[in-house]
Amino acid sequence: MPQSPKITAVDALPAGEAKWIEFQKISWNDQTGKPRIWEAASRKTRGASGVDAVAIGAVISHPNRPPSTIVILQYRPPVAGVCVEFPAGLIDEGETPEQAALRELKEETGYEGKSAEMSPTIVSDPGMSTANMQLAMVKVELREGDKEPEQALDDGEFIERVVVPLEELYERLVKYDKEGKIVDARLWHWAAGLHFAKTML
Amino acid sequence: MPQSPKITAVDALPAGEAKWIEFQKISWNDQTGKPRIWEAASRKTRGASGVDAVAIGAVISHPNRPPSTIVILQYRPPVAGVCVEFPAGLIDEGETPEQAALRELKEETGYEGKSAEMSPTIVSDPGMSTANMQLAMVKVELREGDKEPEQALDDGEFIERVVVPLEELYERLVKYDKEGKIVDARLWHWAAGLHFAKTML
Repeated sequence: MPQSPKITAVDALPAGEAKWIEFQKISWNDQTGKPRIWEAASRKTRGASGVDAVAIGAVISHPNRPPSTIVILQYRPPVAGVCVEFPAGLIDEGETPEQAALRELKEETGYEGKSAEMSPTIVSDPGMSTANMQLAMVKVELREGDKEPEQALDDGEFIERVVVPLEELYERLVKYDKEGKIVDARLWHWAAGLHFAKTML
Repeated sequence: MPQSPKITAVDALPAGEAKWIEFQKISWNDQTGKPRIWEAASRKTRGASGVDAVAIGAVISHPNRPPSTIVILQYRPPVAGVCVEFPAGLIDEGETPEQAALRELKEETGYEGKSAEMSPTIVSDPGMSTANMQLAMVKVELREGDKEPEQALDDGEFIERVVVPLEELYERLVKYDKEGKIVDARLWHWAAGLHFAKTML
């Protein structure tokens, strides 16, 4: 029976002990030629693709339901709460970002789709981290009577998927926040851009 | 005369030497009760607001120009290149996120605005970092004949601002990427949401 995840301790992590991330001390010369130092966090897992991760903006079409997307809810220890995000994951060695996107979508949500558009390589928080990613827009075409597919989660992965009509996405994120969930900044910005287009242009 | 910034060395940063960021070793019990470890990077600068940073989605209106936003271009050592981002900055101690948004907009772009909408607290990369932020939508109302305002940059800050019609934002980001600049994921997602609304709904 699943129980609520719980943080039991937060300790300083010695650099030598870190397995997944590392700290960089970047020496650089600024625009005046002055030598300066910048501190950054970096993932150790980046492979030959040069890109850490992909996120998937799925667009589900169905003969008689409104166009929808899929968000996932999962506990994220760094922010000590349940996050609401686009499906996403790290790119495995030997995989293209496109392959990773379709694989992660299937694993985390069960849905199979066709990649419609890949973003360029974009950076998640360039003031403090080297982390980069690509956003894949993926089309999922359902037919009348198609059943909700099974997720294919790894052992120890607890991910809830929610299909949300695009028309309701922004309000749904506002509601999740009010319930104490934490919305991912990239998903928020996508929904806010969509919302802005509908309400202010 | 400004010259191109240049990275001269990237070294491992011992935890004890880091001034701006720190590593956390998070001990947690997962949904089955199993004890696990997660590694995260964290900013040391978070103040009483509980929020690290704000970004500003400015909407400039003018009697005879199309509605526009402002993006900034600046060199970011963690990603070794010039990033294209919404204006943004860390929240100073004693400041509200709204005050920080209007201050940063004025410093980085010269424009003064009115905060129209604040996002909830959202998280930039919750798989690897504690970093959080709020997106402020800010209205900037210009009148006929208003001159382009002066930036108020700190010493050693080199930030270029570009006013971009909202209708052209997505294509402009694609172009910046092709030129070798690096687009921030949050700005990309906002522009992609706007673009999606115009082209696919």
